[in-house]
Amino acid sequence: MTDQHDFAARVEQPDAPSRIVLVCEHASNAFPPPWGTLGLDAAAQQAHIAWDPGALGVARGLAARLDACLVHAPVSRLIHDLNRAPDSPGAMPVRSENIDIPGNCGLAPAEAAARVAAVYAPFHAGLAAVIARRLVLGLRPVLVTVHSFTPVWHGAPRPVEFGVIHDDTRPEDDRFARAVLAAAWAMTGLRAELNAPYSAADEVTHLLRLHAVPYGLPHAMLEIRNDLIADDASQAEMAERLAPVLTRAMAALRGA
Amino acid sequence: MTDQHDFAARVEQPDAPSRIVLVCEHASNAFPPPWGTLGLDAAAQQAHIAWDPGALGVARGLAARLDACLVHAPVSRLIHDLNRAPDSPGAMPVRSENIDIPGNCGLAPAEAAARVAAVYAPFHAGLAAVIARRLVLGLRPVLVTVHSFTPVWHGAPRPVEFGVIHDDTRPEDDRFARAVLAAAWAMTGLRAELNAPYSAADEVTHLLRLHAVPYGLPHAMLEIRNDLIADDASQAEMAERLAPVLTRAMAALRGA
Repeated sequence: MTDQHDFAARVEQPDAPSRIVLVCEHASNAFPPPWGTLGLDAAAQQAHIAWDPGALGVARGLAARLDACLVHAPVSRLIHDLNRAPDSPGAMPVRSENIDIPGNCGLAPAEAAARVAAVYAPFHAGLAAVIARRLVLGLRPVLVTVHSFTPVWHGAPRPVEFGVIHDDTRPEDDRFARAVLAAAWAMTGLRAELNAPYSAADEVTHLLRLHAVPYGLPHAMLEIRNDLIADDASQAEMAERLAPVLTRAMAALRGA
Repeated sequence: MTDQHDFAARVEQPDAPSRIVLVCEHASNAFPPPWGTLGLDAAAQQAHIAWDPGALGVARGLAARLDACLVHAPVSRLIHDLNRAPDSPGAMPVRSENIDIPGNCGLAPAEAAARVAAVYAPFHAGLAAVIARRLVLGLRPVLVTVHSFTPVWHGAPRPVEFGVIHDDTRPEDDRFARAVLAAAWAMTGLRAELNAPYSAADEVTHLLRLHAVPYGLPHAMLEIRNDLIADDASQAEMAERLAPVLTRAMAALRGA
């Protein structure tokens, strides 16, 4: 069980042998004290605005199949989105898609700073420590973040099923993402696209910029349409499909 | 006094109003337990290989004059260089310039990992927390690291007195450094150069890549020749010369 006052990064299989480090920063829709529900009803707390439904299940399935370390977050992204800088309007949004977030309106600077200190800073410190440890042990990480997206956004259906996104800070940053995409095309029937349903230009690679880019680590952000991973069985099935995709992409990286 | 088992980042004036955040990651030549002297004699422990002599004094003088936050390190760079990635040969060097570091030879992986966990990870977590807090409070940082360099390196004199270095990850990363250089030329008699006595290509911008680049923060690494800041009086004098340089560079940044 989660200590409700401990919002550090959760680390599973810290000493796993794979170079892949899986990250699921939108794993949780927990709204613990001192913040509580932020004024959201039960439906909104379950919705994709609060977390990435299914992503943690897929990430755990991948961690088991790849024998990889997994780092995930223990609270809802609406308390502080760990994939947004603290000064981004998206970090503690007052509105997400078409839902107001009452508990994020009119936040005093000290309240916002307290969330950064309680949630954002410890999560990133924990992930950074995992990466630093694996670097010094010669297990140079390949960072793979696992996300899900809603099949309909502002009324428009999204046909893509599997998106692979890379950061754009440096030209070589696309290498691992392209290898994952090529493997997904070759090995799965998924409708897969590069930098879809959004891209680094939409500010979605903050975590990769913090943790992968400074060390020149290969990386990819996986985006799975959440209707494909709605229950335990489909999450396990998706992990079963994607684990060999990541293995092939790792082999391509070594061969490059 | 420093708790000998607490190697966290030291933070002075955390709530100072200036946007400048000063960092001195090579501030200390302390060799505390559990590592001790690494087999170095007293002269080597005092030498520039162990720390940046004079840099902390200048940084404190700048912090006082600019009313700025200062973050500095409590242990020698030879235990773990905080401006090198954990997997860099320079992080725990076996030789520095012409001096062997016996305590860094033949380090077991677990010993190296323990240094990363005790020194590297907490320092960077502390600095990251300072930056995140100031971001959310609207005090978007300008990161200024303060270093010193030896006037003679492998027998060759270094004529430059004041170097201003920027990271090279993105084209716009040179903006603040160029403003500092222009102000130094206009306002001081110092022999000042850009990206001297070394540059980002020499792996010296690791800290900037971790903390400035992901947030797009303006930044500069200041390098002062250490014979110019050998005692308290000359450190204060240098801070008095450089504080208005940084103030002018901040103004140039706002005007750009």
